[in-house]
Amino acid sequence: MSEKNLLFEAFKQTKYQVAGHGKREVHILKEALQEFDGQQESDIYGKGKVIEEFQVKMAAYLGKETAVFFPSGTMAQQIALRIWCDKKVLRKVAYHPLCHLEIHEEDGLKELHQIEPVLLANKNRLIELDDVLSMEDEVACVLLELPQREIGGQLPDYETIENISKYCRNKGIMLHLDGARLFEILPYYKKSAVEVCSLFDSVYVSLYKGIGGIAGAILAGDTDFTEKSKVWKRRHGGDLISLYPYIISADYYFDQRLEKMEQYYVEAKELAQMFNSCHAVSTMPLEPVSNMFHVHFHASKEQLEAVLLEIYEATDVGLTSYLRATSEVACNYEVSIGDLYAALPKEKVKQVFLMLDQRMRELNN
Amino acid sequence: MSEKNLLFEAFKQTKYQVAGHGKREVHILKEALQEFDGQQESDIYGKGKVIEEFQVKMAAYLGKETAVFFPSGTMAQQIALRIWCDKKVLRKVAYHPLCHLEIHEEDGLKELHQIEPVLLANKNRLIELDDVLSMEDEVACVLLELPQREIGGQLPDYETIENISKYCRNKGIMLHLDGARLFEILPYYKKSAVEVCSLFDSVYVSLYKGIGGIAGAILAGDTDFTEKSKVWKRRHGGDLISLYPYIISADYYFDQRLEKMEQYYVEAKELAQMFNSCHAVSTMPLEPVSNMFHVHFHASKEQLEAVLLEIYEATDVGLTSYLRATSEVACNYEVSIGDLYAALPKEKVKQVFLMLDQRMRELNN
Repeated sequence: MSEKNLLFEAFKQTKYQVAGHGKREVHILKEALQEFDGQQESDIYGKGKVIEEFQVKMAAYLGKETAVFFPSGTMAQQIALRIWCDKKVLRKVAYHPLCHLEIHEEDGLKELHQIEPVLLANKNRLIELDDVLSMEDEVACVLLELPQREIGGQLPDYETIENISKYCRNKGIMLHLDGARLFEILPYYKKSAVEVCSLFDSVYVSLYKGIGGIAGAILAGDTDFTEKSKVWKRRHGGDLISLYPYIISADYYFDQRLEKMEQYYVEAKELAQMFNSCHAVSTMPLEPVSNMFHVHFHASKEQLEAVLLEIYEATDVGLTSYLRATSEVACNYEVSIGDLYAALPKEKVKQVFLMLDQRMRELNN
Repeated sequence: MSEKNLLFEAFKQTKYQVAGHGKREVHILKEALQEFDGQQESDIYGKGKVIEEFQVKMAAYLGKETAVFFPSGTMAQQIALRIWCDKKVLRKVAYHPLCHLEIHEEDGLKELHQIEPVLLANKNRLIELDDVLSMEDEVACVLLELPQREIGGQLPDYETIENISKYCRNKGIMLHLDGARLFEILPYYKKSAVEVCSLFDSVYVSLYKGIGGIAGAILAGDTDFTEKSKVWKRRHGGDLISLYPYIISADYYFDQRLEKMEQYYVEAKELAQMFNSCHAVSTMPLEPVSNMFHVHFHASKEQLEAVLLEIYEATDVGLTSYLRATSEVACNYEVSIGDLYAALPKEKVKQVFLMLDQRMRELNN
């Protein structure tokens, strides 16, 4: 068994886990269905009570005219950008170099839609107003991802978003929100979803990250936009005869977890502080602005794996199932706080961080 | 309420229904999950026991090297044709004028893949060997739909498929099977799925028609083909973090219904005979070759709706929820036999057809 699998398996065996909502197992769906009326009719190709009511609920929550349920964010976002490109008769959009569309979608945007991306900022920092102002290419749309996941879930000042929005509206550039983790950032900004979304022409939110559903996404905007998105949804093969397994569970966990986003945010700050108090460990952002952050270790991946295996064994607390090497002497992983954090015994946590601090000191002496 | 809705609502109220497996309600998913281990891990982006085992099972059943689960047939088939077009460096495929890709997918094939279709045969009849032989355009792939759904689910002679397959292999043209209803035609051909699929380079089957799952499809072929299909699945936004709600139910109903396809076929022939014994009513095909057929009435849509409403009221048996007008004096609808047919009280059925015959005589006097 490789080192990576050792860590993965050891993590799975731990009794307590620091991040997330728990294992992605089938009982998540069973629980969501338990109280649900079995006589409820299925949605049929985007029609029917179960999908329409949820779409109305999400449109209201986001403050947009209409919303459409999609099986995936990958599909929803490519389609959003395509609609804006068609509107502007210009197949060019601007986004961050570590945008999901750029690094996780096998170039679907280019291969299926022939849309060319203009990369803003650089991969180590956020997009700022200046990056948009100094853009040389004409683009149909700018995409902002809030928070910027691949750099630890950082956020710009709220004023920056307002200024980018104002500039784009003046210039006739459409502004799209990659809000995969929109729910999770509202406590930091102290804004409602309606307020944040009012700065954007179209909005995507994910239903299986902070919300913890099975899969699925919402794309929202004005009705002309969402009607077009339904046509493209069919073209992509996303207009399934029935999407209700995802919708019922999204709705169920939305109602349960939306109000917990503040708690996850507070807990993320607490946990980050514990990491930062360890020798040669730091979080990005130093103080989290949502339920997520990255933890960086000054130790090789192999060294840290040995440390973690020891900690899991001694405490029965799992920190992560994987590590990413960033250099020969550094590695990191991503934390997203969910339901599990609140259930951790404080004594165990203390023990984990005592051990981690001690081992990191030994490694860096 | 419009006439169409009247019929739809009256149909829903009937106690007995002649076709299908029953209402598409949430209990279908609940039943499939009932005995399923809640501790089973989710599939994650195409990996994991729940998806991999089902794919292996379906590949073996179809006699192909590998199989990939897709959220929809729309996605699976566009991707199959795209892979063959890329292989041949030629964006042209041949299929029937009433092919699903031509009439039900908002031109996804053209809009997303820039593939140009060559239409074989005409919309009222099956593709024959001559249509393929006399094709003037060079194409990368020929798609055959078995049975040809939009013309009542007709089938060519088995020899025709063998000859088309032989010709295409000689010419280096790829042959793709739209097997949305493949399970349903095997009793007529008296062939195994392996035998039929051996004539094709790639095969798509649907998991919510005869099988009666929630949604989803399988695409099968050699490993080079299916590996490419996974890349395109991600591009299309179909590589969901979790597809297990569809997979678990597809597997559950596959095991339950595969062996019933012979029964559905026999019942379809029996039912078609009863329609054909009525005045001014005929089925297409006259003798069904699967569980499906179309019923054609020499009566206007409005006239027949009134007749059906009367029959539903008198017998509590529903025949159809909709009618399609084909002219001012003719209409039709589609029948697909499923679990419900066997549960019909024979006396009720007799009463239905007595009334139908009598009313059709009155209308055509």
